[in-house]
Amino acid sequence: MKASQFLISTLKEAPADAEVVSHQLMTRAGMVKKLGAGIYSYMPMGLRVIHKVEAIVREEMNRAGSVELTMPVIQPAEFWQETGRFEKMGAELLRIKDRHDRDFVVQPTSEEVVTDIARQDFRSYKQLPKNLYQIQTKFRDERRPRFGLMRGREFIMKDAYSFDRDEAAAKTSYQVMAEAYRRIFDRFGLRYRAVAADSGAIGGDLSEEFQVIAATGEDAIVYCPESDYAANMEKAEALAPAGPRPGATNPMVKTPTPGKSTCADVAALLGVPLATTVKSLVLATDEFNEAGEIVKSQVWLLLLRGDHDMNEVKVAKVPGLNAGFRFATGAEIDAHFGCKPGYLGPIGLKKPLNLVVDRDVAVMADWICGANEADFHMTGVNWGRDLPEPALVADLRNVVEGDASPDGKGRLAIERGIEVGHVFYLGTKYSKAMNATFLGEDGKPAHFEMGCYGIGITRLPAAAIEQNHDERGIIWPDALAPFTVVVCPIGMDRSPEVKAAAERLYSELLAAGLDVILDDRGERPGAMFADWELIGVPHRVTIGDRGLAAGQVEYQHRRHTAATQVAVGEVVALLKGKLKT
Amino acid sequence: MKASQFLISTLKEAPADAEVVSHQLMTRAGMVKKLGAGIYSYMPMGLRVIHKVEAIVREEMNRAGSVELTMPVIQPAEFWQETGRFEKMGAELLRIKDRHDRDFVVQPTSEEVVTDIARQDFRSYKQLPKNLYQIQTKFRDERRPRFGLMRGREFIMKDAYSFDRDEAAAKTSYQVMAEAYRRIFDRFGLRYRAVAADSGAIGGDLSEEFQVIAATGEDAIVYCPESDYAANMEKAEALAPAGPRPGATNPMVKTPTPGKSTCADVAALLGVPLATTVKSLVLATDEFNEAGEIVKSQVWLLLLRGDHDMNEVKVAKVPGLNAGFRFATGAEIDAHFGCKPGYLGPIGLKKPLNLVVDRDVAVMADWICGANEADFHMTGVNWGRDLPEPALVADLRNVVEGDASPDGKGRLAIERGIEVGHVFYLGTKYSKAMNATFLGEDGKPAHFEMGCYGIGITRLPAAAIEQNHDERGIIWPDALAPFTVVVCPIGMDRSPEVKAAAERLYSELLAAGLDVILDDRGERPGAMFADWELIGVPHRVTIGDRGLAAGQVEYQHRRHTAATQVAVGEVVALLKGKLKT
Repeated sequence: MKASQFLISTLKEAPADAEVVSHQLMTRAGMVKKLGAGIYSYMPMGLRVIHKVEAIVREEMNRAGSVELTMPVIQPAEFWQETGRFEKMGAELLRIKDRHDRDFVVQPTSEEVVTDIARQDFRSYKQLPKNLYQIQTKFRDERRPRFGLMRGREFIMKDAYSFDRDEAAAKTSYQVMAEAYRRIFDRFGLRYRAVAADSGAIGGDLSEEFQVIAATGEDAIVYCPESDYAANMEKAEALAPAGPRPGATNPMVKTPTPGKSTCADVAALLGVPLATTVKSLVLATDEFNEAGEIVKSQVWLLLLRGDHDMNEVKVAKVPGLNAGFRFATGAEIDAHFGCKPGYLGPIGLKKPLNLVVDRDVAVMADWICGANEADFHMTGVNWGRDLPEPALVADLRNVVEGDASPDGKGRLAIERGIEVGHVFYLGTKYSKAMNATFLGEDGKPAHFEMGCYGIGITRLPAAAIEQNHDERGIIWPDALAPFTVVVCPIGMDRSPEVKAAAERLYSELLAAGLDVILDDRGERPGAMFADWELIGVPHRVTIGDRGLAAGQVEYQHRRHTAATQVAVGEVVALLKGKLKT
Repeated sequence: MKASQFLISTLKEAPADAEVVSHQLMTRAGMVKKLGAGIYSYMPMGLRVIHKVEAIVREEMNRAGSVELTMPVIQPAEFWQETGRFEKMGAELLRIKDRHDRDFVVQPTSEEVVTDIARQDFRSYKQLPKNLYQIQTKFRDERRPRFGLMRGREFIMKDAYSFDRDEAAAKTSYQVMAEAYRRIFDRFGLRYRAVAADSGAIGGDLSEEFQVIAATGEDAIVYCPESDYAANMEKAEALAPAGPRPGATNPMVKTPTPGKSTCADVAALLGVPLATTVKSLVLATDEFNEAGEIVKSQVWLLLLRGDHDMNEVKVAKVPGLNAGFRFATGAEIDAHFGCKPGYLGPIGLKKPLNLVVDRDVAVMADWICGANEADFHMTGVNWGRDLPEPALVADLRNVVEGDASPDGKGRLAIERGIEVGHVFYLGTKYSKAMNATFLGEDGKPAHFEMGCYGIGITRLPAAAIEQNHDERGIIWPDALAPFTVVVCPIGMDRSPEVKAAAERLYSELLAAGLDVILDDRGERPGAMFADWELIGVPHRVTIGDRGLAAGQVEYQHRRHTAATQVAVGEVVALLKGKLKT
């Protein structure tokens, strides 16, 4: 490609609404152009990156035996009503009425449509397993779209769906996809982690997120540097502390803590570590009659160490809380504790409630909690002595740096990531809702066991930039770069030698199969270099009069701070070598 | 590709709503699956064809200097309000409200968005010409979607837009695109014609349709077998008949024609050729005041030969009718003719009106027309003698087979076609509406001169099938086939020799770069052949025990009725030779 025949449109300044570096750089590099909130045109420079992402994904999906199709962007609502998602998905689902006033949606994913295809086309167990994927435009009407392609409303996603005859086969299909995803992310050339994720009500461990590591990532990733354990924060298990509970050494004392309603304030006042305090979280569960009216409510007290944070996903798995919970009302708290929040604790309750104790709290001795009286806490509290041994102990908290790894192989560390892929075992959720069955080997109809597998095609370039950039712009890995090599001639218009050498090198690089762009725009060197550093092309060859006279050109990698002199005759081989891997 | 790893889903019967052969065959061959009215999933077999179309289009667009981008499917209404198309486009434009009740449209094309990009990015004449294209999902909410992909609501279109500094440059850009389109359609391997089309109010001849020839086509294509003249019916000019008007030989007579209100009936009754009759068409034009109320109406009488059809596009260009016309009301007809339709004519009018005479009628002698009295016609009517010489003569009619070609090189013929491409010079229609300007060489802002260029990516396979099929199914040209070669082993499961030979040939064909599928499903020969004949793979190699024993396999082209025996060792070279061109 010659730059004069392409569209290069760089900006000095990022738009005011670009909050994250990837949005700023993609806009400045002319890769995207905003059309409306969360809606972008993929400009030629950006589309080349997207096409490279798509090509890698397509190759590896095909290699893994998935078959590509394209499902409609605009889908009749009737399929979404079959699974109830037409109502359940809320305002994120963009709904349309056509000229005949019929309901449609703009697809955010395609579980319903692909399940409809399966129930029509996959009639026998002999046709299974099957795996179908598409790379297609999606829409989610985010309340607050932002961060450019990171959280857009219109986006491109690769979504794949597997159909199997039973759970064992479905798990095999899942593993095939998980391996394909590793190959895909390896090929992208990004630092990433595949982390275990919560699989919700379905159970099992068949849910992994593929997270691109970036300090600016929205997600906390938990991993063990000494092993291959990795999970997202929702999923990562906090083990019970090793060893037995220490013995009680202090008496329980009602201690004045005037105005100190947080664990941190209490610990500071008393001059003790925060980890000796226990926080009380009060939840409630409701039972409903058939008319949807509340017929009974229960109150739950959760105890966590003062320096720990509650993990809602884990709490939602506690028996009794797993059908849904809410925070207790002021009236409920008053009825059970006779005290306002800030000074609550498990001792001296006015009414019995359900107590759930975090694993760490269960092995604490001489701890501190609210006294159920304003401005007082109890210190020196001990299980068995001051209150009964905990009956229900569970992992209720987010892990923290230094926690023992659940695989027993070391300590946990935490870093930030951007989720760009997800593999998920669905079970029969959709096949049962849509009565999608095949004829099993036993001659009886059975529901498909399904999995779903997504990659955020347009989110990936943004994540790649969050990970790979500097103050001058983007630094693409070779696999994703819009062009892998740029040839920059200096003074092409006044030096026929430079022009000829640049054109020759360009032709040779093209012939060698490299994805090269020749900057024949005639820009001054400063502006030209600034453009390519902003755009992030990884390999640059500069051709100037003086070097040419000595038979040399300059090679520089985008990550390097200085250029190397290379003999004109050797530069093609040099680049081929660098780009072979 | 191995068939067992692909998705082959053929049907014996076409769905009841499949009216045209391409819709029937694409559905039966498992290439598309209907999701709703005019909305289809492109199934794996069909998507391969679509991808081949896209690849050819992309290559040739790039070669012609057009640069690919992707504009959003969901577009804010504000851009469409700038050009007025948000209101003007009517019910075909699918409108959406998002969660914040803002208006959006699903793109049917992208003139507005691309013009917005141009006014932001193309600031100077130095950046011009520019040509941008996308291959992207579109939606038109057709009142009556039908014919499968031929007239779907959701479809994929390649739309390109050129931006130039002046009309001359725009015409050059147009020619570059028209040539690229010829290369594209040549590469598709279809019989097609590029036909001149009407360019509406803009004038000039810069509008061509690319029509795939098919007997079932919706459009009439006019061409001259002796020259390269070709136009669509709207555009094709009917020349004035050669030579002077014959002299009058008969007196004008009021002749009873009881109950004969059509030219055909009158000609039959009188035993004269239909071409001696003249039909009267009564139109009206209105003038409006600023409040949109009609302040004045005029009535127009158009005279055409009885065997000719009115061409609305031509009529709309007649001075006085070119601001819009309608058919006259019964009251208007009565006021001017004093007679009901069926017996109208230009002689003995009650009130003056505007008379427009078709070129053919202007040179007729002794003709027949209505007498403005029920059940009577005038015969032997002659210009100059019975009524004044016509003041306004124009081409008002559709051409017919045998008319003189407008290029003077022979006689016109007519065939049917399916429009799958269109190149069009837009002028400044959109750039003026959106005030999209660049800085000209003279330092003054100027509006972009634009062109637009479309190809119906998903319509093309349907058109190809309408042109290329037989009673057994589709016959793809090599360039569009989902696979170009199918290897069909007979009894693969019981003959290790057949299995080994099939696998080996498959590997060799893959290695030779051919797009081959191995049918390893284990189907019986009859069902297997029927599937591939329905799907339309052009080249088939059949491997059986008996042939193998003699070192031979069978080659058959989808168009041939019999197979050829080929030595096993020669079949790769044979296929490479056939697929080279």
